[in-house]
Amino acid sequence: MNIPQSSHPRIIIIGGGFGGISLAKKLAGQEVQVVLMDKHNYHTFQPLLYQVSTGGLEPDSIAYPIRKVLQGYDNFYFRLAEVNQIETDKRIVKTNIGDLKYDYLVVAVGTETNFFGNKTLQQNSMAMKTIPQALNLRSLILENFEQALLTDDYHEREALMNFVIVGGGPTGVELAGALAEIKKGILPKDYPDLDTRRAQINLVQGGDRLLPAMSEIASKKAEDFLEKLGVNVWKNIRVTGYDGRLVTTDTETSFETATLVWAAGVKAVSIKGLDAKNFVTRCNRLKINRFNQVEGFDNVFAIGDVAHMETEAFPNGHPMMAQPAIQQGRLLGKNLIRLIAGKQMEPFTYKDKGNMATIGRNKAVCDLPNFKFQGVFAWFVWMFVHLYFLIGFRNRVVVFINWVYNYIRFDREARLIIRPYKKEFKA
Amino acid sequence: MNIPQSSHPRIIIIGGGFGGISLAKKLAGQEVQVVLMDKHNYHTFQPLLYQVSTGGLEPDSIAYPIRKVLQGYDNFYFRLAEVNQIETDKRIVKTNIGDLKYDYLVVAVGTETNFFGNKTLQQNSMAMKTIPQALNLRSLILENFEQALLTDDYHEREALMNFVIVGGGPTGVELAGALAEIKKGILPKDYPDLDTRRAQINLVQGGDRLLPAMSEIASKKAEDFLEKLGVNVWKNIRVTGYDGRLVTTDTETSFETATLVWAAGVKAVSIKGLDAKNFVTRCNRLKINRFNQVEGFDNVFAIGDVAHMETEAFPNGHPMMAQPAIQQGRLLGKNLIRLIAGKQMEPFTYKDKGNMATIGRNKAVCDLPNFKFQGVFAWFVWMFVHLYFLIGFRNRVVVFINWVYNYIRFDREARLIIRPYKKEFKA
Repeated sequence: MNIPQSSHPRIIIIGGGFGGISLAKKLAGQEVQVVLMDKHNYHTFQPLLYQVSTGGLEPDSIAYPIRKVLQGYDNFYFRLAEVNQIETDKRIVKTNIGDLKYDYLVVAVGTETNFFGNKTLQQNSMAMKTIPQALNLRSLILENFEQALLTDDYHEREALMNFVIVGGGPTGVELAGALAEIKKGILPKDYPDLDTRRAQINLVQGGDRLLPAMSEIASKKAEDFLEKLGVNVWKNIRVTGYDGRLVTTDTETSFETATLVWAAGVKAVSIKGLDAKNFVTRCNRLKINRFNQVEGFDNVFAIGDVAHMETEAFPNGHPMMAQPAIQQGRLLGKNLIRLIAGKQMEPFTYKDKGNMATIGRNKAVCDLPNFKFQGVFAWFVWMFVHLYFLIGFRNRVVVFINWVYNYIRFDREARLIIRPYKKEFKA
Repeated sequence: MNIPQSSHPRIIIIGGGFGGISLAKKLAGQEVQVVLMDKHNYHTFQPLLYQVSTGGLEPDSIAYPIRKVLQGYDNFYFRLAEVNQIETDKRIVKTNIGDLKYDYLVVAVGTETNFFGNKTLQQNSMAMKTIPQALNLRSLILENFEQALLTDDYHEREALMNFVIVGGGPTGVELAGALAEIKKGILPKDYPDLDTRRAQINLVQGGDRLLPAMSEIASKKAEDFLEKLGVNVWKNIRVTGYDGRLVTTDTETSFETATLVWAAGVKAVSIKGLDAKNFVTRCNRLKINRFNQVEGFDNVFAIGDVAHMETEAFPNGHPMMAQPAIQQGRLLGKNLIRLIAGKQMEPFTYKDKGNMATIGRNKAVCDLPNFKFQGVFAWFVWMFVHLYFLIGFRNRVVVFINWVYNYIRFDREARLIIRPYKKEFKA
């Protein structure tokens, strides 16, 4: 892979998400060689993907070139690569661009959408975990309305204007809210010749409340906000299938729709060589100890969503969000240096900074460790926190400008079908 | 096509470029029904495509939703459609979404890249006339550098870092300048493990000067600026072929490159039913009279790049740029109303507002009707004019912010491979 030998130990980091980037930054200036691999040449700020899908933001402003993050660090290498396999006995990472030996390996590959083995569901649903997926969804939403204009078939038009979002976590809630705002603020102006009152946004949740990772009051308020925006919230319903037109569930409820967005589950990305072992827990996560070492290894680590660390406070592992990944990445940076120096590593303790979700303009819910609040103030806090964690000054400014503009004008100007998404719709 | 009948005459405009949009705006509030068709749902600001290709701007900020342009106009319809054929005898436009009768037809479809029938050239070259094409080029440029890192083959690496741009018009000049700035300002920081001094930017021009549509002094200065930036300028050389690796010319000069950008010619987009007639002139342009009527018709019009109007000042037709399209669109708006009212139409006279091109930071050339200047001031004028003509307040602000940021930081942060471009490179 054309990485020069170095007198320093080589740390390979797989994945340039929140965890991988935080770790890489901590290792800057240390006596190690760092090779960061990712299948994209950019870091994705996943919490704002739903705004790309709904035309509120351009993709480029929530992405950041990984090479730029590493600019100016000595002995740092980035490789655009897809990892095929790890050979832990030989300490080799095998990729589509060649093999590379490691001294220390950090797996930070994150998660992917989990369809729980349902093939037809997977084939016909839209996922929203990457920028290309978010752009496909953006195209499809807009194409649906263009197509709805053309048909004389009542049921086809209804299905084209009917959106089903499965999963009541933050992604589902935020997307449903954004679609409801588009229905209200943009559709009537853009499609005067379409009766856009018929557009329906359905949010389907398997459990008995939305945002199950948050407080009861946050769940309740989020549901209130969504209903005020005109979203149909369906609880205690599990989607069992979708053939491209009909959504079936485990109840008598069904939906006819051209668009099902699946936000009902994720699983850790699995890597050959680290998969069929006894250290893989539910959702494919890798079982790690308090030092982020994968069970059975002293030189293989996992951080972030892919890592399953059981602690007293989190017996089922940490929540799959940015904060645990960032905190683990930072600590592991220090711990690797300690380990290399033969010193004692420091065990990880998660510092809960809270949890939040936005539903629409002036509508968000925040659970801070000692303070729960909802509404306008929560919405401002949500925006501030997201701008703060977005990587890159330019990105922050551009996102901020877009938000101010969208807020004042009730608009989302990025409703562009740059690359049409070809979806077969059962007419 | 589900357009309601109206008591007013129906004007169909094909194409939402500068001409089509200007015309549509002029027709607002008049007693006509307007149907605007485009194969994209957005207007593209083509003069800035090269900045999308080179990571300086995001695509969304040089595109604008056509539906938003028409928001609030009565009796206006937009259709996302590809026109297949015109039947002038029946006054019907045939499209992929159905047929529609017109009373007046305006063709404003613009141009596409002209490979002059050279199939292998067309197959292996990159064009840059649309946003998807510009994004493909962005991906390819970045992929080339990633790939150059991996190869041990000297010649392959050279070819991957060698860029050949064919065509010394504004597109070629601006792209060459932008690539030279990337070579200087970004490559050494992003690719410390690659000897980026070996990157070559070649601009190949068939004629004996760059920017042939501009003044001699502008041509001379543009060439000076490019050479200062390290671009190799080749004049009086015509590219004859490109197999994906070797560029052949009509001289002994040849180039080995993984990337050939073809900016050496355009031709009007031809539409069946308006093609095989005697009114098609060179480059497929439709011959029109001073009222923009296509020869032989009183209800079929053409404006902008697709239209060939011979006048004393422009015996070979007007230059293919935004200004003639905008001016013709505006006048035709008035003329159509006059024609419908049985009044005399006003003949078109082009008001030359000048011509400009930018080469790099602080480097541009301007030919105004009475004043020619180059350098820093020209560069500021170029930026001001482009911001002014960009559609949409949000787009202007975002582009402005990006320019300020890129200027201060010598940076271009949108160097993202969002969708990899699959190009077979002859290794």
